[in-house]
Amino acid sequence: MKLFFEPQSAALLGATGNKFRPGYQLFKNMEASLAERFYPVNPNLQEIEGKKCYSSVLELPETPDVAVIFIPANAVPQAIEQCAQKGVKAVIIESAGFEEVGEEGRELADRCLHIASRNQMRLWGANCMGMINVHQQKILSFMNSNWRDRLTAGKVALVVQSGMLSAGFLMHIMSRTPFGLSKVCSIGNKMDVDEVDFLEYFVSDPETQVIAMYLESMKRGRKFFELAKSTSKPLVVLKSGRTEFGAHAARSHTAALAQDDKVLDSAFRQARIIRVYGMEEMMEVARCLAVSPGKVVPEARVAVITFSGGAGVVCSDELHDRGMRLAPLKPETLARLKTVFPEWMDPGNPVDVYPAIEKNGPVKVFSESLDALMQDENVDAVFMHIFAIPTREDMFQYEKLAEMVAKYQKPLVAWMIGHGETAVKVSQLLEKHGIAVVNEISKGIRIISALTMRR
Amino acid sequence: MKLFFEPQSAALLGATGNKFRPGYQLFKNMEASLAERFYPVNPNLQEIEGKKCYSSVLELPETPDVAVIFIPANAVPQAIEQCAQKGVKAVIIESAGFEEVGEEGRELADRCLHIASRNQMRLWGANCMGMINVHQQKILSFMNSNWRDRLTAGKVALVVQSGMLSAGFLMHIMSRTPFGLSKVCSIGNKMDVDEVDFLEYFVSDPETQVIAMYLESMKRGRKFFELAKSTSKPLVVLKSGRTEFGAHAARSHTAALAQDDKVLDSAFRQARIIRVYGMEEMMEVARCLAVSPGKVVPEARVAVITFSGGAGVVCSDELHDRGMRLAPLKPETLARLKTVFPEWMDPGNPVDVYPAIEKNGPVKVFSESLDALMQDENVDAVFMHIFAIPTREDMFQYEKLAEMVAKYQKPLVAWMIGHGETAVKVSQLLEKHGIAVVNEISKGIRIISALTMRR
Repeated sequence: MKLFFEPQSAALLGATGNKFRPGYQLFKNMEASLAERFYPVNPNLQEIEGKKCYSSVLELPETPDVAVIFIPANAVPQAIEQCAQKGVKAVIIESAGFEEVGEEGRELADRCLHIASRNQMRLWGANCMGMINVHQQKILSFMNSNWRDRLTAGKVALVVQSGMLSAGFLMHIMSRTPFGLSKVCSIGNKMDVDEVDFLEYFVSDPETQVIAMYLESMKRGRKFFELAKSTSKPLVVLKSGRTEFGAHAARSHTAALAQDDKVLDSAFRQARIIRVYGMEEMMEVARCLAVSPGKVVPEARVAVITFSGGAGVVCSDELHDRGMRLAPLKPETLARLKTVFPEWMDPGNPVDVYPAIEKNGPVKVFSESLDALMQDENVDAVFMHIFAIPTREDMFQYEKLAEMVAKYQKPLVAWMIGHGETAVKVSQLLEKHGIAVVNEISKGIRIISALTMRR
Repeated sequence: MKLFFEPQSAALLGATGNKFRPGYQLFKNMEASLAERFYPVNPNLQEIEGKKCYSSVLELPETPDVAVIFIPANAVPQAIEQCAQKGVKAVIIESAGFEEVGEEGRELADRCLHIASRNQMRLWGANCMGMINVHQQKILSFMNSNWRDRLTAGKVALVVQSGMLSAGFLMHIMSRTPFGLSKVCSIGNKMDVDEVDFLEYFVSDPETQVIAMYLESMKRGRKFFELAKSTSKPLVVLKSGRTEFGAHAARSHTAALAQDDKVLDSAFRQARIIRVYGMEEMMEVARCLAVSPGKVVPEARVAVITFSGGAGVVCSDELHDRGMRLAPLKPETLARLKTVFPEWMDPGNPVDVYPAIEKNGPVKVFSESLDALMQDENVDAVFMHIFAIPTREDMFQYEKLAEMVAKYQKPLVAWMIGHGETAVKVSQLLEKHGIAVVNEISKGIRIISALTMRR
């Protein structure tokens, strides 16, 4: 798998100089990634933008670590045969037209697999967008090359079993909140390399701390769950095809398949996999897990700081739903909270800070009460409701917050409503300092549950 | 209730010229709303910014339609007594310090109620942010007066049982996607006027087409559900305090209360109330209901247009979860889709349009396939997955879409991922033309379920 993720050299079969074709984006990305050890192959071209083009893999001056294939499906088996002759051990087939188009495509796939197994070669794909190694800036994908600069190196590995979705996800992620990625894999039909191979790789990849996967099928369940159990890295999975509609896009076998999903659900729970049901949810949970510290506790006791009694009530409901509870605050903590509260009000949990803020301003109240709560041994995590007041980005001492999070190693998750532009700025500042920010209470509580369930 | 929502004259007890106090925002908002028929009252002031100030309600030149009270709680009963003497029939108490602070506050509330009932006076509040009538630009609330211009008149009435949350909601709504509101009510402790009064009013308010409520308690359940059943206007409710944590912020009576919530849930279903569990979800569902047409059908048959097979699968799962199904497309529809599809691909439902778009471009493919699907008698609603391509805001013929929605009167809901800035622009254009846009597949499917369940 290392050849796929950290290639030192690579060939592209199907390189083109036509700026409107995906093969051109592949060409640009791979050239930027590997410079002179990138070898475009196209029998009809002498060169592309001054770069020498080879007529076949067999002519390359070295055996590349990986070959990326992006030519019509029916020509792929022969190309793989040539790769085998050249001694290539890792091939990514990005072309479509295999299992997903029926019998004919399945036969093509079988031929490819046959050649590969005879030659100890691994096949990735087909029908996919390939691989992006963000830390090393190696891009074996036809994502738009103009977007390269937007990739932010980080801790999350994203595995997506769908070409368009991985493209969609990527652009989505890149054009919004800073979201740090280690590797992105679009895995397509999984004719050979599958989610277990990816999981295995990411479990031991030091650049990856959180693994997020969108899967439409699971091939080797037992092995997958064993791996998931064995690692301390959080694994977030969106498994579609849960229902018979999803699985067949038709009406049949309700009971049988609903049963299957229940079995799957219990396996997920046992393996402490964080199961999600939406695309945005998957991305948000993964992002937050990468931002916050976490620690496994039997039944998390959560302190809630809120601007509004109402949010405190909704929050308590959600804690109950997720098997957690409101932390019973220690007398010392209550006494410290009291120092910033108005005379007429006694602090409790949820900690309704609005009257205190009216009296003492947000900076003092947040820093005092957060420190008191984080220090309390009865508190495993803190959920904080923030109201973004226009232009008041300075309502926190961000450096102090970061120190607090680092010192106590407890998850601190914020939910923010209020002024749009201010909310964006405050969110970015908070996330930079180790506080995950969400846009819905239920999401924040789910993230605390994920953070205290594993690692 | 009409006095509260459409006052021609109003007094403000507790007006102040101190720009940093909420009483000043109330003064500014009410002056802008009612001009010379607005009467500030404050025994310590002669005038505020040149506007004459009265020392007591008794001195006003007329009996105002409504009196807004924003003075310390212990002075409120006497103020209400004076309002009664003057003949005022509608009073909004925005001050805090009543039932929510314990025994003493409860006694104050009882005194107020006693005076009110003796004088056929209705009390709104206490402990709330009051009322905003967006169409008539009448604001009896201490929301920041600089934000007035951001209010967009529309069809959604928002009722929030929490002061801070209603402020938060409002600012949230106003600083994001255009969100049209008819009235906003922050209802506080509900010492007299309660959610049933509000529901009754909005059911017959011609400016309101969708009603959204955040409630922490429900006082007159039977009447509430009867009203909900009687109306064709969609009602979206976020009820907190669902669990014993929420209800008590403590550990007790699990079984009993969990039971209660189940009973409530079934009552919600019978009354066709759209139950939501999150703040953002509530706002999003309400906004989309106001954008899209809807029609009650027994089991909605949904056509899915998608850029990605993966999204089609997730979508099918969600349809199953909500008791809907993929529409069986008519042969004519499939034939029409085939005209924009590539040779090698046969259309089905989900309609995977990506290859067609590669061949014929987004404008032609979307307009042909949407028209074919909307026309199909086997299709009750259309869900559309859009991938926002940078700078391609022109991927739709928006006018034509609006005509289609108006002609067929079927819900068309879009889910968009991709390039952030483009997505915002396309969303705004789509919503302007009657297509609701969401950021998660499950939300889109929930909205189709809400749109086909009632009205």
